[in-house]
Amino acid sequence: MRLILRMNEFDLIKAYFSNVNSSNNNVIFGIGDDAACLRVPEGMDLLVSSDTLVGDVHFKASWDAFDIAQRAIRVNVSDMAAMAATPAWITLAITLPTLNESWLDSFSKGISCALSRYNLSLVGGDTTKGPLSITVTIHGLVPNGRSVRRSGASPGDRIYVSGDIGAAAQAVLFLDNNPCDIPPNDSEILFDKLLLPKPRIDLINALRESASSAIDISDGLAADLNHILKASGVGACIDLVNIPIHPLVHKYQQENAFDFALSGGDDYELCFTIPRQNEKRMLENMVKDKKTVYCIGYIEEQYGLRIRDGFGKVDEVTPRGYSHF
Amino acid sequence: MRLILRMNEFDLIKAYFSNVNSSNNNVIFGIGDDAACLRVPEGMDLLVSSDTLVGDVHFKASWDAFDIAQRAIRVNVSDMAAMAATPAWITLAITLPTLNESWLDSFSKGISCALSRYNLSLVGGDTTKGPLSITVTIHGLVPNGRSVRRSGASPGDRIYVSGDIGAAAQAVLFLDNNPCDIPPNDSEILFDKLLLPKPRIDLINALRESASSAIDISDGLAADLNHILKASGVGACIDLVNIPIHPLVHKYQQENAFDFALSGGDDYELCFTIPRQNEKRMLENMVKDKKTVYCIGYIEEQYGLRIRDGFGKVDEVTPRGYSHF
Repeated sequence: MRLILRMNEFDLIKAYFSNVNSSNNNVIFGIGDDAACLRVPEGMDLLVSSDTLVGDVHFKASWDAFDIAQRAIRVNVSDMAAMAATPAWITLAITLPTLNESWLDSFSKGISCALSRYNLSLVGGDTTKGPLSITVTIHGLVPNGRSVRRSGASPGDRIYVSGDIGAAAQAVLFLDNNPCDIPPNDSEILFDKLLLPKPRIDLINALRESASSAIDISDGLAADLNHILKASGVGACIDLVNIPIHPLVHKYQQENAFDFALSGGDDYELCFTIPRQNEKRMLENMVKDKKTVYCIGYIEEQYGLRIRDGFGKVDEVTPRGYSHF
Repeated sequence: MRLILRMNEFDLIKAYFSNVNSSNNNVIFGIGDDAACLRVPEGMDLLVSSDTLVGDVHFKASWDAFDIAQRAIRVNVSDMAAMAATPAWITLAITLPTLNESWLDSFSKGISCALSRYNLSLVGGDTTKGPLSITVTIHGLVPNGRSVRRSGASPGDRIYVSGDIGAAAQAVLFLDNNPCDIPPNDSEILFDKLLLPKPRIDLINALRESASSAIDISDGLAADLNHILKASGVGACIDLVNIPIHPLVHKYQQENAFDFALSGGDDYELCFTIPRQNEKRMLENMVKDKKTVYCIGYIEEQYGLRIRDGFGKVDEVTPRGYSHF
């Protein structure tokens, strides 16, 4: 084994990122020094989050590098949306098994495209040799004290979901089973949901103004809502029939559709709570902005997550969080 | 293959990090939400850098997890030292092949120890399953406009190195060759240099006050000085006999000692330039603080790196930077 101890090498990736967005958003200087220098505007808090995507664990290494890059950025943007923070800067640490120029070319185009879509600057990173893996650290800004946490939900708050869920889990199932009789249209819609999630930064202002808590749905609605419940020290009751399930999940899962929507992750919609006194204003703003959000239940004092089915029967649920190990 | 699409899981590592430093240093809130919330004090710039360490590439996976953790933090702290920034916060993204509790226990102790040594807060991260890899993103603070970059060197500036170099490269050579006749004392000293580099945060104030440029020596003196020369659009002449070479490199390398010091990386000492008018003050402060730094040459207008040997003969050098690919 040759022990390679070179650190902090950004030369390679830099060559592929000469045209990316790196000079706006209060970037004093970006790539090219031992660190990037950034200025957080007065009156703003800094939000920071890291996500790693490992090849053949979080994505198939055989996917188009453009999509892998997009997804790596988008799942991180979603963390900012969940905190009601405006995305600003990322660092990108990428580990590659080989130097494949066409792969890198496609990957860098995916990065550029996502940066530009979310008005993000790439300010630094690291490239290393090894099994394919991508770690993005994202930074966002929010006015002092206005970020939305998991811990703010109170009894009586309404629980909302920002859009259809379950489609990404359906796509994962098709990836595992590889059925050949799926109409191309359906397949395209589902894989788009998995590969190119649409982080809900369009809801940042609404969350800042009205929400008492929020989280993005990456692990599944039940598991993620449960994070809110635990952090807030409360419970919840949700109505199964009010959960916005993607139509293709109904089509392919039929009686399992609710289970998919409850426990399937990777949709990157938001789950958030709205105190009763803020609900009218929030909904009026949604109508004004032509957005639809879905009230699925309410926060209760009693711990635990309860689900009411279409016949009014209430069951206590133990959310199944995925464990890697 | 089971495609696991769980993101943003910090539960596992959190269990091992309940006792780590995470509530000082302007941390509004750390682990437990979709992102950490930090406050950059007024008048300060934010410095950000990411480094990935891949198992059996940047370190032997068989090393003590305590040392791996320490090293992962220390090499990142070194990037802050090179920019004259005070380290403040890190996020830690760790990919593990298996859940080995004694490994994790030892790793978390190494993290805690390094955080406490450098007064750092662990504010977030991600744990994923896959080939062993660690990405640390470090954040530091520096008064507005006072960070020290690679690009500030001017003809006439003196070039300094902050301490002995070459020992880490010697340790790597011993790792590769595995000789059995090294006295345990020597071996311990050399591997300490490799495993537990001492980032020079003690020089941050001196750099802010006096330096025109700086970099940490991770790739080797010649390659790293060359980064300064390129960024500054200048050249340099250094005196071979003035390079501070670790005594054990002289002992084991004899006539190759200078080559080791020039091209061996991983010592994490600093290379920096001091304008003539600042030199006296800087050296007086060094004496006052009982520190030794070494003047190895000076910046010139003419591009390129020239090395003068003990007989006055000057040779142009093409720095050998390590390429992963």
